[in-house]
Amino acid sequence: MPKLAYLGPEGTFCEAALRILAPDAERLPCANVSAALDAARGGEADGAVVPLENSVEGAITVTLDELAWGEPLLISAELLLPVEFSLLVRPGIGLPQIKRVYTHPAAITQCRNYLARELPDAVVVAAPSTAAAALEVSMPGSPYDAAIGPAIAGEHYGLFELAARMGDRDDTVTRFVRVSRPGPLPEPTGADRTSLVAFLRDDHPGALLEMLSEFAVRGVNLTRIESRPTGDGIGRYFFHFDAEGHVGDARVGEALSGLRRLSDDVRFLGSYPRADRVSPQLKSGVADPDFAEAAGWLARIRTGQA
Amino acid sequence: MPKLAYLGPEGTFCEAALRILAPDAERLPCANVSAALDAARGGEADGAVVPLENSVEGAITVTLDELAWGEPLLISAELLLPVEFSLLVRPGIGLPQIKRVYTHPAAITQCRNYLARELPDAVVVAAPSTAAAALEVSMPGSPYDAAIGPAIAGEHYGLFELAARMGDRDDTVTRFVRVSRPGPLPEPTGADRTSLVAFLRDDHPGALLEMLSEFAVRGVNLTRIESRPTGDGIGRYFFHFDAEGHVGDARVGEALSGLRRLSDDVRFLGSYPRADRVSPQLKSGVADPDFAEAAGWLARIRTGQA
Amino acid sequence: MPKLAYLGPEGTFCEAALRILAPDAERLPCANVSAALDAARGGEADGAVVPLENSVEGAITVTLDELAWGEPLLISAELLLPVEFSLLVRPGIGLPQIKRVYTHPAAITQCRNYLARELPDAVVVAAPSTAAAALEVSMPGSPYDAAIGPAIAGEHYGLFELAARMGDRDDTVTRFVRVSRPGPLPEPTGADRTSLVAFLRDDHPGALLEMLSEFAVRGVNLTRIESRPTGDGIGRYFFHFDAEGHVGDARVGEALSGLRRLSDDVRFLGSYPRADRVSPQLKSGVADPDFAEAAGWLARIRTGQA
Amino acid sequence: MPKLAYLGPEGTFCEAALRILAPDAERLPCANVSAALDAARGGEADGAVVPLENSVEGAITVTLDELAWGEPLLISAELLLPVEFSLLVRPGIGLPQIKRVYTHPAAITQCRNYLARELPDAVVVAAPSTAAAALEVSMPGSPYDAAIGPAIAGEHYGLFELAARMGDRDDTVTRFVRVSRPGPLPEPTGADRTSLVAFLRDDHPGALLEMLSEFAVRGVNLTRIESRPTGDGIGRYFFHFDAEGHVGDARVGEALSGLRRLSDDVRFLGSYPRADRVSPQLKSGVADPDFAEAAGWLARIRTGQA
Repeated sequence: MPKLAYLGPEGTFCEAALRILAPDAERLPCANVSAALDAARGGEADGAVVPLENSVEGAITVTLDELAWGEPLLISAELLLPVEFSLLVRPGIGLPQIKRVYTHPAAITQCRNYLARELPDAVVVAAPSTAAAALEVSMPGSPYDAAIGPAIAGEHYGLFELAARMGDRDDTVTRFVRVSRPGPLPEPTGADRTSLVAFLRDDHPGALLEMLSEFAVRGVNLTRIESRPTGDGIGRYFFHFDAEGHVGDARVGEALSGLRRLSDDVRFLGSYPRADRVSPQLKSGVADPDFAEAAGWLARIRTGQA
Repeated sequence: MPKLAYLGPEGTFCEAALRILAPDAERLPCANVSAALDAARGGEADGAVVPLENSVEGAITVTLDELAWGEPLLISAELLLPVEFSLLVRPGIGLPQIKRVYTHPAAITQCRNYLARELPDAVVVAAPSTAAAALEVSMPGSPYDAAIGPAIAGEHYGLFELAARMGDRDDTVTRFVRVSRPGPLPEPTGADRTSLVAFLRDDHPGALLEMLSEFAVRGVNLTRIESRPTGDGIGRYFFHFDAEGHVGDARVGEALSGLRRLSDDVRFLGSYPRADRVSPQLKSGVADPDFAEAAGWLARIRTGQA
Repeated sequence: MPKLAYLGPEGTFCEAALRILAPDAERLPCANVSAALDAARGGEADGAVVPLENSVEGAITVTLDELAWGEPLLISAELLLPVEFSLLVRPGIGLPQIKRVYTHPAAITQCRNYLARELPDAVVVAAPSTAAAALEVSMPGSPYDAAIGPAIAGEHYGLFELAARMGDRDDTVTRFVRVSRPGPLPEPTGADRTSLVAFLRDDHPGALLEMLSEFAVRGVNLTRIESRPTGDGIGRYFFHFDAEGHVGDARVGEALSGLRRLSDDVRFLGSYPRADRVSPQLKSGVADPDFAEAAGWLARIRTGQA
Repeated sequence: MPKLAYLGPEGTFCEAALRILAPDAERLPCANVSAALDAARGGEADGAVVPLENSVEGAITVTLDELAWGEPLLISAELLLPVEFSLLVRPGIGLPQIKRVYTHPAAITQCRNYLARELPDAVVVAAPSTAAAALEVSMPGSPYDAAIGPAIAGEHYGLFELAARMGDRDDTVTRFVRVSRPGPLPEPTGADRTSLVAFLRDDHPGALLEMLSEFAVRGVNLTRIESRPTGDGIGRYFFHFDAEGHVGDARVGEALSGLRRLSDDVRFLGSYPRADRVSPQLKSGVADPDFAEAAGWLARIRTGQA
């Protein structure tokens, strides 16, 4: 039974993600992303589950920077988790009894319409996290009647889910990844993703265009590009890429080798099944058999065969 | 005398930036970036000064998203401000008297070495902002003996600067921009920058490569590229670009027009003098006279002249 | 009634092309392509019809070089003429009477199967041209019984067409163009072609790729590319291009301007209706209204409008 | 002692090229390029020397088409031979005695200035080839007093070289290649050239741009590009390429493999030392050690090593 660190405390969306990605794992809540990744690096845990990006907020930059700069870790799985808020109450409490609501400010913002419609007179108070809000509300004698948070927080703290999916935008999604210390990669499934980080050799105009060309020429589509500062001053960046395919695919391997030759440093962050199971639309001539045929041909012409 | 909103409270790095960008302006501190930009939009202020990116933390995403989605504003100036921390005390206090230090956690992190070396026995307590820490320390009877913050916070709250540039990385820089409602652009200076936002028409593979090609073909270098989520789900992004040159330059104008034709939407965010005064290295054939010569030639051949 | 020079003598495929392109024109046969073009340049004729390329033999290099280097001429029309051979005899002669055949060696090669099948015992003698062969055969007392040549040669010299389309490959096609001194261009028809010649500014690696990119970025497809030596030594070339569209189209005009800025010299050779009437498949954003919309937008943002 | 076919008769520039490329070879003159190549294919000769291009006339298309379509042959060497004309006379004849000159029309054109200056009153008569002219002049009782042709023709036919380098443009150069049946390639020298032919899979817009990108991305420069008709109608072409480097170089091998995957057919025409001994200027990251390092890295990350 593996032990996985995650962004705690108990009751977070991150825990919900972990429980889907690894239902049987032992869970180790950590105070922040860096601590969770350090637990995986140091062996305190066998791996970690952390958020990578959110469909509204964008990249979780602490995760990007940790994966780029810290001791190497590899992504082995990903999950797209809808960010759905529930109204959590002590058993026996109904809507009319709710006078004071406790939750994180982000949840207040995202549930504004529900609150205005269903609880127009309730006082809403800011909590440090949705999990902390649920814990507080679960205490006998709490001054708060309800918390807003993930359903999983209700489960943890013995609260009743009075309303579900109460956010204004229930299509918001957070992408979580499972990482572990370097080791054998997940097998290719035909619908995989490869993550990596590349540092430009010299930051000349057109350098990003050159990097993108390494992928494009081999027919490898990119699904995400993020620039991050190198720390060496405004205008100096490195890049996170997510590419379609598995590093074991010939086209992906050759593209990564091309990027490696072009870059000061490339850090491979893993190949793993896509959460959305979408297989890439390959242009002509870039499937593995095409590479194998061309390699055979090259070997022949190099020995002077017709 | 213009009135400029900024990210307050008094004593922030943002105020320091504003005072350099517009020494004579009346200053309107605001609670957050959105409030400062709304003050500029609504006419409460004539403009605003806000942070855009930091050389270590990266993009200030709230600023990027506000400029992309809110009522249009144009950048008219930029400033690169070193993030330098000072040790601020009530007059009469020296190092030996400092038992308790109050500051924002980011400053604690960045001044770790100084604190370990010079104040190994001091207790360091987290404050909501460096400006708030300075205000607190300035109060008679404060339990804190020193604040860490920008020098300007000391000026504001009557504190003495006992040490300057005490951060571990005093090369950290924040880029601030001055924005205002749409209106006449700053004149080209020969060392300008143009900012814009582009939304892909349809998010096909290679779309970013196509956008970069519009710049590259006209010899326009990009100095910054940021992807941001459109909010329509993981994997859907729009892009912020900073390009060398002024929209009045022929090559920049043609590149922007090309981007416009290629994109669902392009929002122009302004052309303004570069803070670093660096003029672009132009490749052959892309200066304004080259465009003028080619336009004259095109007009002639269209009428059938040799 | 215009007077057009052409590659003579009377009875050539070139005359056949001229009679289709300009049925009412007065015809001036010339000894070679250079002479025909010089007649157009010097005013002896109002224009000329010359071959540009053949679907089997390739470019007619003398035409390419004359158009690139000589006094400027503009192409105003093109024609694709099938190269079809006929068996031409004096009236009264039938297959059994044919003992000796006279024609140009190229025609012997291309009619090999017909000759082996229908005239296995005939002696075939090489003539300087198919037109000369027809003239010879038309003479009373000629030692030859039949000529092989274009049907038009039979008409000219009073011969009877005993067999038509006797070549082994009757899908061979020659492309002829009508040229004249610079003057107003043919109106755009929506299915046009533009011809031009470009000399590289400096012959650096990737120069051709850059030139092709000028077209590709504006969505202008090329239908023909020919390299020709500049005469300055092996490895120095200039390029002939045929592009889809009319120079009056915004995308074509901008691409040509881009090429002009990139090149040491660009010579425009004309925009004219395509013989095959094929309209280009335009990618999104490159039609004239797209350019007009983008130009309007650019004008607005340059004055600081939102 | 190898036996090499060449474009005869004796005394041609092609023989001169052969004698430099293979001084000890037995020589087999052939009536035309096709015959010389067929002699090499069929085993009548061990190889052939034929012209490939001329710095003024351009490609020798019969050679290009024979190498593309016929039984495969590989280029193993190249030579750049200046096209220099000599005035060849029977012993004892001086300039004043020359009344009638015999030579090929191309030589008449290229020696126009010399003839006007030195032999203004001589009659110049057209011969079928410069070698035939030399043979004729060598005959006792010939009506001609002098031939114009390559020095080698004088040697062959016992003529005296009265003047050398008499052409108006003595910088004209013809590139000859030595070809043979497929077999081991010449070793890489660091200054090599690779020739090949590529047929587009489907003739879509941008296909040539894609092919050029396969070379450009790997930093392989092209020194020659020729389009030739496929024979399937106007507008259908295939391409001859000369690239810098040897197929044994990693970057060239990978570029050719990429082209192979992209194309309907690629025919390798050989890797051989450049006549001009120019080594390529490699961009960063494309030398063999760069490829080897990247391949090692790829192997490591594929097994999940950091």
